[in-house]
Amino acid sequence: MTILERRDVNSVARLTMNAPERLNALSDEMLAALQSELDALREDSSIRAVVLSGTGKAFCAGHDLKQMTAGRQSEDGGKAYFKDLFDRCAQMMMSVQSLPQPVIAQVHGIATAAGCQLVATCDMAVAAEGTRFGVNGVNIGLFCSTPMVALSRNIHRKKAFEMLTTGQFIEADAAEALGLINRVAPLGDLEETAVSLAETVAAKLGAAVKIGKEAFYRQVTMTTPEAYAYTGDVMVENMLNRDTEEGISAFLEKRPPTWEQ
Amino acid sequence: MTILERRDVNSVARLTMNAPERLNALSDEMLAALQSELDALREDSSIRAVVLSGTGKAFCAGHDLKQMTAGRQSEDGGKAYFKDLFDRCAQMMMSVQSLPQPVIAQVHGIATAAGCQLVATCDMAVAAEGTRFGVNGVNIGLFCSTPMVALSRNIHRKKAFEMLTTGQFIEADAAEALGLINRVAPLGDLEETAVSLAETVAAKLGAAVKIGKEAFYRQVTMTTPEAYAYTGDVMVENMLNRDTEEGISAFLEKRPPTWEQ
Amino acid sequence: MTILERRDVNSVARLTMNAPERLNALSDEMLAALQSELDALREDSSIRAVVLSGTGKAFCAGHDLKQMTAGRQSEDGGKAYFKDLFDRCAQMMMSVQSLPQPVIAQVHGIATAAGCQLVATCDMAVAAEGTRFGVNGVNIGLFCSTPMVALSRNIHRKKAFEMLTTGQFIEADAAEALGLINRVAPLGDLEETAVSLAETVAAKLGAAVKIGKEAFYRQVTMTTPEAYAYTGDVMVENMLNRDTEEGISAFLEKRPPTWEQ
Repeated sequence: MTILERRDVNSVARLTMNAPERLNALSDEMLAALQSELDALREDSSIRAVVLSGTGKAFCAGHDLKQMTAGRQSEDGGKAYFKDLFDRCAQMMMSVQSLPQPVIAQVHGIATAAGCQLVATCDMAVAAEGTRFGVNGVNIGLFCSTPMVALSRNIHRKKAFEMLTTGQFIEADAAEALGLINRVAPLGDLEETAVSLAETVAAKLGAAVKIGKEAFYRQVTMTTPEAYAYTGDVMVENMLNRDTEEGISAFLEKRPPTWEQ
Repeated sequence: MTILERRDVNSVARLTMNAPERLNALSDEMLAALQSELDALREDSSIRAVVLSGTGKAFCAGHDLKQMTAGRQSEDGGKAYFKDLFDRCAQMMMSVQSLPQPVIAQVHGIATAAGCQLVATCDMAVAAEGTRFGVNGVNIGLFCSTPMVALSRNIHRKKAFEMLTTGQFIEADAAEALGLINRVAPLGDLEETAVSLAETVAAKLGAAVKIGKEAFYRQVTMTTPEAYAYTGDVMVENMLNRDTEEGISAFLEKRPPTWEQ
Repeated sequence: MTILERRDVNSVARLTMNAPERLNALSDEMLAALQSELDALREDSSIRAVVLSGTGKAFCAGHDLKQMTAGRQSEDGGKAYFKDLFDRCAQMMMSVQSLPQPVIAQVHGIATAAGCQLVATCDMAVAAEGTRFGVNGVNIGLFCSTPMVALSRNIHRKKAFEMLTTGQFIEADAAEALGLINRVAPLGDLEETAVSLAETVAAKLGAAVKIGKEAFYRQVTMTTPEAYAYTGDVMVENMLNRDTEEGISAFLEKRPPTWEQ
């Protein structure tokens, strides 16, 4: 058993964090394993969508506090290690969003601190009924400043601020209403729900999803005129794709497309 | 019958897209007609609000795919035509938001792709029960990159991403909960609901609504200090308007205002 | 009785606007009193959270229209006074967000125009059942352009636009669903709800809440890479705090922390 399992079924890669005794904490090893798989997936044109889950009682409980505490032993009290750690973590999170393939978080148990950040970072997320989400570092004196980056780009400000400063958890239904996750499923249906969503996306024209996902995150912080100038060019590129031409022709002729992709 | 009908009732202009056989697709002709009417409305001080609707089974089904496919016949495979088309479409969308008068979408049937973009672009929107919204271009290999600009500025990221990559539709109730539309009405009450909302806005001081709408879109992407510096000046200008002086005096004297506007 | 009462209970400062005959309007005197207390609180390390409420029938009904009208008597028709007024008001609003301590609005009755802006500006807000919120300046010809800055950073665009151009009120339940407030309580439980939320925050490590609140508003308009570069440094600083080291150690050792703060 490795710390991060990968199993490909058709064109969906299923990544499973597998450190249940540490609640799948984002240790140095877990971060490296995630980065490595994301780097591999980026080059793997056979994969069209990714599902990320965790074994054991929790999806992910955030950073590995034991390992971080051990890092204090260096001469600088851990300063260089912490800086490198948060850099690596942010790099991994941004790699999720820059990955060509959509990534769906399959969440159960708890998703806290950087674990909640990971849910917020994934392009989509489904959670089991009863899953609890929190950015609760404030409870131990470590404000969830990096998780806040992802969280505050998912949900409205006042609720994000409340979660961050009270450390209180919200349940799956509230997370869905707030926009943190896409849908809730009974625990017994969770995997099927996540995989089904992934398969839906995987069945689309991969080139279209790829340029669309990249454009999604690039345009979202632009002004509207900038965003239209940019996405207009993206649409032209998309239109000139031969598979898109076939897709549109097939639609007009009321037949299924025959894609080369 | 023209492709875009305009009927003014008091100070509300009602624009009706009228190409039901093409589900009011945003063809070259429809885009030109919309742009032309928006340009005319911009100069028409007798109009205080606009309601945009469509005849037939749908509000608007997006771009005209037959026309776009025909555009491929040119030497460059349509590249120049597509670029120009998306430029014209974005120009029309931005003209809705830069129009001095608020524009309310009156939506029924379906609003898909650039039709959903048009709903997201309008300042407000009301929809009939059962109306379906989608950015479903991905289903034929053409990711809705330009509709995404408007959609992702209306609703939270995860649901926008889901709609864009799955192509799945949402119904009017969900669209309201997500923030894509303002309210839902039974189909039989739809027109009255949209017109009533327009008349409510039209009864306000036109100069105040005009500077307010302009400020709304300009300030929304600024930092907070920038936004306050800018809107502070807008408030001063508004205060020095003679009709505003009368409006405030009338309020303090508990009488209706007598506006010159 | 002063125009703004302050009562400290343990580490929570309770500010109460006390001009009930003017519905706690943001007059020159009220703005000055709020600015003065915020400046004092900024330097007061004994205070960990602030609750802001109002006496009488309303939380706050916005600017003082009588005073503004009186300001028109100067040679420039009030232009310099209005500019200064909106500058001072924006300064006070921004001081709420730059205050190290979280500020919770305890809202009842009505919160209109700049009063609604104040609710939107506070880090969190709780409201009594039946409280009504509006940015209704448009009804008297004065578009709520400055309140819009805060409102449009709290809730989705279409609903904000509707509130601003129709002047219509929304009730507390709707305000919560939209994201303008955090929760609704029966009027009889309002104070306890607000104070309890403040005490929850006040019990956290003050240094962590302080750097977290500052980071919240700074990172929210950055691009994601910028936000991670910035908050990564914030996390390192937080980790090197001695009380945070103790908080994490205590958590790992399953004992309560002993903080020096």
